[in-house]
Amino acid sequence: MKILVIHGPNINLLGKREPETYGVLTMDEINSKLKAIAAKNQIELSFFQSNIEGELVNQIQDSDSFDGIIINPAAYTHTSVAIRDALAAIKIPAVEVHISNIYKREEFRHKSLTAAVVRGQISGFGAQSYELALLSFTGHCDS
Amino acid sequence: MKILVIHGPNINLLGKREPETYGVLTMDEINSKLKAIAAKNQIELSFFQSNIEGELVNQIQDSDSFDGIIINPAAYTHTSVAIRDALAAIKIPAVEVHISNIYKREEFRHKSLTAAVVRGQISGFGAQSYELALLSFTGHCDS
Amino acid sequence: MKILVIHGPNINLLGKREPETYGVLTMDEINSKLKAIAAKNQIELSFFQSNIEGELVNQIQDSDSFDGIIINPAAYTHTSVAIRDALAAIKIPAVEVHISNIYKREEFRHKSLTAAVVRGQISGFGAQSYELALLSFTGHCDS
Amino acid sequence: MKILVIHGPNINLLGKREPETYGVLTMDEINSKLKAIAAKNQIELSFFQSNIEGELVNQIQDSDSFDGIIINPAAYTHTSVAIRDALAAIKIPAVEVHISNIYKREEFRHKSLTAAVVRGQISGFGAQSYELALLSFTGHCDS
Amino acid sequence: MKILVIHGPNINLLGKREPETYGVLTMDEINSKLKAIAAKNQIELSFFQSNIEGELVNQIQDSDSFDGIIINPAAYTHTSVAIRDALAAIKIPAVEVHISNIYKREEFRHKSLTAAVVRGQISGFGAQSYELALLSFTGHCDS
Amino acid sequence: MKILVIHGPNINLLGKREPETYGVLTMDEINSKLKAIAAKNQIELSFFQSNIEGELVNQIQDSDSFDGIIINPAAYTHTSVAIRDALAAIKIPAVEVHISNIYKREEFRHKSLTAAVVRGQISGFGAQSYELALLSFTGHCDS
Amino acid sequence: MKILVIHGPNINLLGKREPETYGVLTMDEINSKLKAIAAKNQIELSFFQSNIEGELVNQIQDSDSFDGIIINPAAYTHTSVAIRDALAAIKIPAVEVHISNIYKREEFRHKSLTAAVVRGQISGFGAQSYELALLSFTGHCDS
Amino acid sequence: MKILVIHGPNINLLGKREPETYGVLTMDEINSKLKAIAAKNQIELSFFQSNIEGELVNQIQDSDSFDGIIINPAAYTHTSVAIRDALAAIKIPAVEVHISNIYKREEFRHKSLTAAVVRGQISGFGAQSYELALLSFTGHCDS
Amino acid sequence: MKILVIHGPNINLLGKREPETYGVLTMDEINSKLKAIAAKNQIELSFFQSNIEGELVNQIQDSDSFDGIIINPAAYTHTSVAIRDALAAIKIPAVEVHISNIYKREEFRHKSLTAAVVRGQISGFGAQSYELALLSFTGHCDS
Amino acid sequence: MKILVIHGPNINLLGKREPETYGVLTMDEINSKLKAIAAKNQIELSFFQSNIEGELVNQIQDSDSFDGIIINPAAYTHTSVAIRDALAAIKIPAVEVHISNIYKREEFRHKSLTAAVVRGQISGFGAQSYELALLSFTGHCDS
Amino acid sequence: MKILVIHGPNINLLGKREPETYGVLTMDEINSKLKAIAAKNQIELSFFQSNIEGELVNQIQDSDSFDGIIINPAAYTHTSVAIRDALAAIKIPAVEVHISNIYKREEFRHKSLTAAVVRGQISGFGAQSYELALLSFTGHCDS
Amino acid sequence: MKILVIHGPNINLLGKREPETYGVLTMDEINSKLKAIAAKNQIELSFFQSNIEGELVNQIQDSDSFDGIIINPAAYTHTSVAIRDALAAIKIPAVEVHISNIYKREEFRHKSLTAAVVRGQISGFGAQSYELALLSFTGHCDS
Repeated sequence: MKILVIHGPNINLLGKREPETYGVLTMDEINSKLKAIAAKNQIELSFFQSNIEGELVNQIQDSDSFDGIIINPAAYTHTSVAIRDALAAIKIPAVEVHISNIYKREEFRHKSLTAAVVRGQISGFGAQSYELALLSFTGHCDS
Repeated sequence: MKILVIHGPNINLLGKREPETYGVLTMDEINSKLKAIAAKNQIELSFFQSNIEGELVNQIQDSDSFDGIIINPAAYTHTSVAIRDALAAIKIPAVEVHISNIYKREEFRHKSLTAAVVRGQISGFGAQSYELALLSFTGHCDS
Repeated sequence: MKILVIHGPNINLLGKREPETYGVLTMDEINSKLKAIAAKNQIELSFFQSNIEGELVNQIQDSDSFDGIIINPAAYTHTSVAIRDALAAIKIPAVEVHISNIYKREEFRHKSLTAAVVRGQISGFGAQSYELALLSFTGHCDS
Repeated sequence: MKILVIHGPNINLLGKREPETYGVLTMDEINSKLKAIAAKNQIELSFFQSNIEGELVNQIQDSDSFDGIIINPAAYTHTSVAIRDALAAIKIPAVEVHISNIYKREEFRHKSLTAAVVRGQISGFGAQSYELALLSFTGHCDS
Repeated sequence: MKILVIHGPNINLLGKREPETYGVLTMDEINSKLKAIAAKNQIELSFFQSNIEGELVNQIQDSDSFDGIIINPAAYTHTSVAIRDALAAIKIPAVEVHISNIYKREEFRHKSLTAAVVRGQISGFGAQSYELALLSFTGHCDS
Repeated sequence: MKILVIHGPNINLLGKREPETYGVLTMDEINSKLKAIAAKNQIELSFFQSNIEGELVNQIQDSDSFDGIIINPAAYTHTSVAIRDALAAIKIPAVEVHISNIYKREEFRHKSLTAAVVRGQISGFGAQSYELALLSFTGHCDS
Repeated sequence: MKILVIHGPNINLLGKREPETYGVLTMDEINSKLKAIAAKNQIELSFFQSNIEGELVNQIQDSDSFDGIIINPAAYTHTSVAIRDALAAIKIPAVEVHISNIYKREEFRHKSLTAAVVRGQISGFGAQSYELALLSFTGHCDS
Repeated sequence: MKILVIHGPNINLLGKREPETYGVLTMDEINSKLKAIAAKNQIELSFFQSNIEGELVNQIQDSDSFDGIIINPAAYTHTSVAIRDALAAIKIPAVEVHISNIYKREEFRHKSLTAAVVRGQISGFGAQSYELALLSFTGHCDS
Repeated sequence: MKILVIHGPNINLLGKREPETYGVLTMDEINSKLKAIAAKNQIELSFFQSNIEGELVNQIQDSDSFDGIIINPAAYTHTSVAIRDALAAIKIPAVEVHISNIYKREEFRHKSLTAAVVRGQISGFGAQSYELALLSFTGHCDS
Repeated sequence: MKILVIHGPNINLLGKREPETYGVLTMDEINSKLKAIAAKNQIELSFFQSNIEGELVNQIQDSDSFDGIIINPAAYTHTSVAIRDALAAIKIPAVEVHISNIYKREEFRHKSLTAAVVRGQISGFGAQSYELALLSFTGHCDS
Repeated sequence: MKILVIHGPNINLLGKREPETYGVLTMDEINSKLKAIAAKNQIELSFFQSNIEGELVNQIQDSDSFDGIIINPAAYTHTSVAIRDALAAIKIPAVEVHISNIYKREEFRHKSLTAAVVRGQISGFGAQSYELALLSFTGHCDS
Repeated sequence: MKILVIHGPNINLLGKREPETYGVLTMDEINSKLKAIAAKNQIELSFFQSNIEGELVNQIQDSDSFDGIIINPAAYTHTSVAIRDALAAIKIPAVEVHISNIYKREEFRHKSLTAAVVRGQISGFGAQSYELALLSFTGHCDS
């Protein structure tokens, strides 16, 4: 099983950016934790990060060789119809994750344009949001 | 570790109710799956279901002996300030789960009154939403 | 043919409560009128009233032995997703009735959460709203 | 007792128009069913149909010789203040009917401009909506 | 000077219709009062009434021989873009009148689609609203 | 008959202020025109202008010796509940006037807080709006 | 004089629940303070608390033997048409109280469904809100 | 191939009406241009214009002998559910056209009630909007 | 203890103004009742009334020598950010009172701009609203 | 005549992406059809596609050598002020096209930010939308 | 060059009022800083402060002898159409300043009624907002 | 002191683009003016322009070596949560500038997503907006 992990804008700042909201782990540290879980579950992981909406669209379009996508659309969650359309266009399942609990924050973060076209959404568990998303693909959470 | 699983209104109909939306597993079968995971992770589980908003409030208030709550507020997600207030009043963390992806459904289901006072929300993974919520309490997803 | 008549909150006050809005008949008198019609049409009637939203949900769930439901959700018409979900979950047809013409009253009474999941809605005919609902099940209004 | 039945725009297409929404009966067949009920109840019926809002206003104004009106304002339900004003101006009671359950359909069909000025509204019972409206005038549903 | 007086829907019911709102004068009595004023001011008056939106549009289009229009669009004030467009298309000035004070009534009567394309609006003076409108064309109110 | 004419904020700038919107007459010139009409109709006029909302309230409260008020609340039309309350509190009739057609201008000028508590509103006739208001008190427009 | 004090959902947690918002007094301590005031004013007090909306409705319906109600609907203030209807149906006056100043909190707490059907509302004085409500029934605050 | 061209309200004023918005061509000149195109493409054209909403409904209902409709609903675009329903009821495809770019104009013109039930919408090309609509029926634009 | 009582616009008309809404007591009579209560509780009272928003701001700013403010902002409750800012700027507690139950009246009276910056709000008790506010400062309601 | 055809995000997926909505033609096939029409009409075509909003802005800015633009802004139609500003900044006319009928789809697709700054909009004709746009530039549809 | 500096309501409290929001400088200290800058730039300054909306209107009207206005409308920014109208009526340019960043604060402070009629707005720089406004009039910021 | 000047989308068109809105200076000319001011104030300036939202995010993230940012987010002001998040994530102060007065333009330009996370906003001064922003960093405007 091959899973593509897509990090949206400003995720590359994790660890440095507003740690009271986003925690102290860096993006690389999150990726490392995911790799450890993946290794135990025979999952092959690829990672992509961009601050450019259209590059995220490009990468989503280019996911034919994967079995699933874990995506944190970050700021684009609330504004990008283009990413929504790309996620709707592909044939593999995607899971949307958020590090912070977006429902505790500003009103404009409560609306996700992408949530309606993914399998499910996991929000508020810090780096663990990614880990739970990864486990959702294993089919047996407790393995 | 002791976790309380609270099922909201109409969850007792699972398996019979609109299976194209909610899947074919019954509430008891979901509980059994959770028990299996719990056993492997040294977690003790208790279950509660009610169709009555105030009984859910009672149960949330009565959770002092637990380390965490997994709650599917179901229909009350969108209408209950009372359950929100109860979740905000207690000191243990709660995780909100939804079987269906509420963001794919009617507009009024997109708004959760409870999401702002729980640790995180997991939506759209069918029975697996509960399982992921349970794993979120183990602290080590990959164990 | 067996029909279940469900009266929502404050319907037990009929006759005493704001008669200029709700008329002078009591709930029992309405039930008696329905029984007379039912008798002529070979319909067996059962009655249930509760002020508790969840008990109405319980009763709706527990309607397998009936051929149809006549429900006056009263105040819960405008606030209860739980009753809506219960009505959507069952397999028998339901008819929603209102004693007063809800469209002549406060703005918040114009919106029915349940109307979208029942067969039809009858509003404004006083006690006669129930009678018309009952006749709708006979298939031949004029018999 | 003399009752005027007013059919609004596009009702003349019934039977041909979107039968999954409006059923297979034609307007003439509905009128025939109503005549049969009327005959048994000593009611004299008149019928009027127009696609022109102002002609419906004209007819409502011209109802002095009737004891009641059954009106399906159809599309004008949601847009006509003129029909509302005409119904408010006359002294005889009117009943509003809808073949389809308007609360199951597009958002703009949930709002009735006329409902606030009629005795009651019956929505969703197909051709039977008219029949129930007619029975509401007999005063004794079960005769 | 030639002025065209256009009465909208249900104005033909004046005197009979809700006198507490619209007063006791009939449309003909209002027209007579206007004729008296016109005679003193060397104004030639023509009158038109219709309940049909499009006939009002026709009449407005057909006003080339007049120097001004007094129009009570009545119910169509709040719903007719067609009448607005007709009033905007012609080259002579129009004055909008209302018998009742529309700002004291239902919320939906507070919005006039036509007010933005006429010279001015006079609302709330009963039959006198028409008289004031007529005087507005004389250029010297006090003559 | 004694009539009080109240000019709201910035009316003292008339003639100098945006003449394409408000015309070229000054407030004094309008008052002079009104005095001429009043003289012919045995009306005694008093005038008051203030830019201060509360002083307008004071003056309205202090109108016991008058038979009617002509008020151009100007900017306060759209923001002053205090002036509305004062107009509702007094026992003599008031007429609201506007020089420009407020329905042709910015959206926020379409809403009048005072219109619901006056006899009627006249908008868009330039200085003539005041003159028509004055004639509305004579009871015989054509004298 | 007999007064019924009704505490809504989560009020039984007072003292333990978010003391920075709700203060440190428990419900029993508030009741004791009220009893002391009642004793001095020859008032007989009864108390009721429930987390279940419908039980609050039941209790309100069952208040015939009282002269007045003090009710803190708590979370149901913002969501319960059923409690509103019950308060409107009874014949004795009710006073609505809130411990916290609901207008300083989340937007959804600014709207009270019950305020329009009670005598008055007292909000923001902590436990003293109840005391002031009780004094409002004595008719002579200063006794 | 037979195509019916339906012109809505005020289109009969084209050429005279606000030429800066609607251009200088009359309705007859537009029809002539369409006839020329039709002749080259073996299309038979019929034309209909009315200012009356219900007559437009009548004509749409009466289109069985045509292969397609080109309709400029003009003002009724934004207000007519009746025309929408008629277009939805018929079985032949319709194309909606607008002479002006409705999205450059008043907010209320941005919403089309009919667009959702036609094949497509062409807006802003002046008389050419009709021509493009006609070509859309030829199947080969470039012939 | 020194308390400043501030009466907002039109309060000086009490007793004369709409007695069915505001009661028959004059402002002076209310002040006298307050003085009687104050005397018993060793409170020194000062009174201020103005119809001018900015004078109310001036007086609020000038309250350094007082221990608390009782303010009935009346019409300015719903429109004055300036009074809100003044109340937020001072260091002594304020209590907002309303004679009528503002939640029973027009929609625009349901929103208080000042409520969020005062200690509490008391609405609907007639003149007693002021008395309860005064008692709220004594710290011992039952003395 | 030189025309620039700009395809927005996800248009490069055409043919593979949700064919029930977008049809089976690929972007290259559409371009080929356009080239065939262009050749017959002495038009020189250039093509550009990008998923990146800013690259579309770059390309629009870089259109000095063209006589017109055909743009399908796709998802950016509903979210991009930047593309709107670029289209408004250039001096050549642009035509907006949509393959699907955007008015039949989700509410958020009904609003076009770009429509107000282009010559016209063509929506719902599949690949033919582009062809009609191209013909709109020829000035003679039927050539 | 003569510039008029107008301070709105509660600005006279600066230094004492919520220093975390408004800083520690008093109004006089800000004026002194402005005088120092003015002296270096050959600008003559006048100052005016009032808490009364209408006095601010008076002062704005009375600005003929000045070359520009710097105004901090403070609370009236969000509520005063009267000040907006006065600023629109005068012929000299005005600059709007805010000490705090109004876009970081309550929603109702994000809307400025005056911003649309001034040259520009400067918000969030503390006392420096005034200084920058003053420099904007020098035409050469760096002198 | 080192300041980074970031120009958003379409700013590279300045001078050519709608000069009545944006003035006649090019971006290079504005930069030159800023350099002249910077030189006098010992400020080192860097410049960046991009039409791509994500590249603006990249550059903001990459500002560690600067003491402040002057940013004109242009079109992205109103749509970019990503730029807002980047500005919130960095530790140096930013100032938002707009050439035109955005509050005089379309409604959608009145809302800035970035204003809440910068130090202040300067809008409407043409090229001078940048100059004032630069002076805001010198700490002594008058040097």
